[in-house]
Amino acid sequence: MQTIKEYVQSNKDRFLEELFALLRFPSISADPKYKEDVVKTAEFVAERLKEAGADNVEVCPTAGNPIVYGEKIVDASLPTVLVYGHYDVQPADPLELWETPPFEPTVRDGKIYARGAADDKGQFYMHVKAFEYMMRNNALACNVKFMIEGEEEVGSANLETFVKANKKRLQNDVIVISDTSMISMEQPSLETGLRGLSYVEVEVTGPNRDLHSGVYGGAVANPATILAKMIASLHDENNHIAIPGFYDDVIELSAEEREALNKAPFDIETYKEDLGIGEVWGENGYTTIERTGIRPTLEVNGIWGGYIGEGAKTVLPSKAYAKISMRLVPNQNSHRITELFKTHFESIAPKYVQVQVKPHHGGEPVVTPTDSIAYKAAEKALEEAFNKKPIPTRGGGSIPIVALFEKELGVKTVLLGFGLDSDNLHSPNEKYGIENYLKGIETIPSFFKYYAELSK
Amino acid sequence: MQTIKEYVQSNKDRFLEELFALLRFPSISADPKYKEDVVKTAEFVAERLKEAGADNVEVCPTAGNPIVYGEKIVDASLPTVLVYGHYDVQPADPLELWETPPFEPTVRDGKIYARGAADDKGQFYMHVKAFEYMMRNNALACNVKFMIEGEEEVGSANLETFVKANKKRLQNDVIVISDTSMISMEQPSLETGLRGLSYVEVEVTGPNRDLHSGVYGGAVANPATILAKMIASLHDENNHIAIPGFYDDVIELSAEEREALNKAPFDIETYKEDLGIGEVWGENGYTTIERTGIRPTLEVNGIWGGYIGEGAKTVLPSKAYAKISMRLVPNQNSHRITELFKTHFESIAPKYVQVQVKPHHGGEPVVTPTDSIAYKAAEKALEEAFNKKPIPTRGGGSIPIVALFEKELGVKTVLLGFGLDSDNLHSPNEKYGIENYLKGIETIPSFFKYYAELSK
Repeated sequence: MQTIKEYVQSNKDRFLEELFALLRFPSISADPKYKEDVVKTAEFVAERLKEAGADNVEVCPTAGNPIVYGEKIVDASLPTVLVYGHYDVQPADPLELWETPPFEPTVRDGKIYARGAADDKGQFYMHVKAFEYMMRNNALACNVKFMIEGEEEVGSANLETFVKANKKRLQNDVIVISDTSMISMEQPSLETGLRGLSYVEVEVTGPNRDLHSGVYGGAVANPATILAKMIASLHDENNHIAIPGFYDDVIELSAEEREALNKAPFDIETYKEDLGIGEVWGENGYTTIERTGIRPTLEVNGIWGGYIGEGAKTVLPSKAYAKISMRLVPNQNSHRITELFKTHFESIAPKYVQVQVKPHHGGEPVVTPTDSIAYKAAEKALEEAFNKKPIPTRGGGSIPIVALFEKELGVKTVLLGFGLDSDNLHSPNEKYGIENYLKGIETIPSFFKYYAELSK
Repeated sequence: MQTIKEYVQSNKDRFLEELFALLRFPSISADPKYKEDVVKTAEFVAERLKEAGADNVEVCPTAGNPIVYGEKIVDASLPTVLVYGHYDVQPADPLELWETPPFEPTVRDGKIYARGAADDKGQFYMHVKAFEYMMRNNALACNVKFMIEGEEEVGSANLETFVKANKKRLQNDVIVISDTSMISMEQPSLETGLRGLSYVEVEVTGPNRDLHSGVYGGAVANPATILAKMIASLHDENNHIAIPGFYDDVIELSAEEREALNKAPFDIETYKEDLGIGEVWGENGYTTIERTGIRPTLEVNGIWGGYIGEGAKTVLPSKAYAKISMRLVPNQNSHRITELFKTHFESIAPKYVQVQVKPHHGGEPVVTPTDSIAYKAAEKALEEAFNKKPIPTRGGGSIPIVALFEKELGVKTVLLGFGLDSDNLHSPNEKYGIENYLKGIETIPSFFKYYAELSK
């Protein structure tokens, strides 16, 4: 029997080729015009699962994008691991900022550049290849179920229905998700918390048509100016979010917890240099690690209104828009926060304009236990692969499915992520290290092994 | 000899057909990709001038779009009128809001719907047709020169060079421009002032790339939020413009002048209803007529940044932009104001971001005399055509050329406009009344006649 190290060595090129093929699909879930590519991607994933040895592989239709399911039940007495991932990706624009086309994977200094390389195609596909190894070497220590969805980047709108309708089929002992980052290749880590999300789109309407700014300017409220004033008021002078009740449900960490959190290796200078900023920004009284890990945030993800083309147009726009999202921390509820935002935003709208707040999608925050068998198994697997004990961290991102699973299936999740914060997730030139990819494939079988052992 | 009334009656259909042909050219000067159409439009205008009887017609090249020149010198002893107009138009977007395509002129309830119908193709072409009448009926009472340019909507960048280089050729006694509005078909008016313009584009840069708003949100300044705060600060709580020194050169009108100005028929309820707004907005202490006529203003003409496509993208943008223009009143200088803006905007930029201010174009404010022979001639011509004495008004728009002419040629201008504020200038569904068009053609020859008489 080959060891996983040997197997990865001898199949490395094929593992990369297969990932590249997967990355070539522009499976952008936010934009309806990619619907067909999204479906093709799901079928591709299903094929790879079959080849790897999964049974009952199915491309399950939903009201939105299909969910790919597959499983291998070796022995009912063994624990069952459910692997969750997503084959959809973020939009690639602004396209002009990509050094190489987002859907033509290219390798530069050991990194795979492509939209979805790390988020999440490169990461979920590690599980498919690790599974292939365990199957071919008769080393599958647990039953395994795969659920790879296609709407994670747009809020997993149809996953809840699917999960509720398939509780029996999805039944498992632990969920493993590789869709997060670790500190570095020198310092492995395990995320033990994820933030929730409330995403809204706002529309401010002034006059019933675009107006000549010379004829009407100065006499009619400009929705772009009003929107700017409204957005400006959402953070106070200490950069606290100025929405009444916003922090009511936030659980404050103890001094000890905060101290532990800030022990994670972090160099502010390297951070600023990497981002090309002169100064970090954020809520007064908290460190950068805390601002992204344990504090809720409010960000403008997009703003537009009036003439944004070439040259100059002297128009007073009829409408202005913004996409605004809030990251939530444990005990905050996305529905409540969305309501609070809506009520507040409407309440601060001056009489000159009409305001509409359209909720996009949300997700609930979670904290994953560090004392569970699954966490310990992940810890051992990572220590074995990296020769260093991983440290627990708090992730800033959101994976709504984690909270959904806890609620619907009563199962906890392990966030076994191999990405890096510098992978340009959701940005141009998204990348994923070849080394991260192969290390991941190498780590997963040991997780299965240790999880089975510790479960005995 | 036919009277102008008779001539208009018998040639009405042809006059409309010719205007429609002119309106079919998408001569958008703001967008380079229409360059070819712009040139074709200039050639079309030159042809029509020749047909009407003009001599020395020339499509004069400039560093930008060509200027069409033509003249008819009947007698050196007669006064010379220079007709200025522009064949370029504003961009047509947002296209989806047009009921019929912007460059397919369509008549609905007596109005011609098309981009440029009123601004300025429909208005300058009245002069070409009035000139045709005077030529064919041997009724040309003055020498006439035409200068129709193609860059008015982008600040007439190359006109100054042309005027300076052609002072002799352009020599005249009065300039007539039909590119403004009157109060209504029941109440003719003559604009006696125009506001100047300073137009800038600002760029706010935060991090060197778009970031994942979950991983970095709350810890890195968001340029969209910062831009919103900066724009919000440009007006104080009384809606005064909060740029130090901005009002220094503004000439305050006397109580009498303001009273006279506010005598113009204006119904605030009709105004609000037409625009679909609940309340008017503006600088405290001034009426709506004053806010658009005698006070400087600052408007956001466009704002954009981050993800503005379909659906949701959780990105913290690297850059945010805005197009901002200021309308200036007599004694303010566009270059000085642009400098004041730039200095102020850069000074309020927080250390988290970099700010760039790019000046687009400007123009100087003017006041035209109401005691001149030319004004009196226009007054008589309008009274004759509308059976009602026109009243003087202050226009909110800008026609930089007027100040340029005063400076370079030492000649005053008469603003003989036949449009209406409700013509949707710079907006979707721009229109121009067929009646306005024909009334204009009818009025112009009398202006020439009276101007010649009063000049004796």
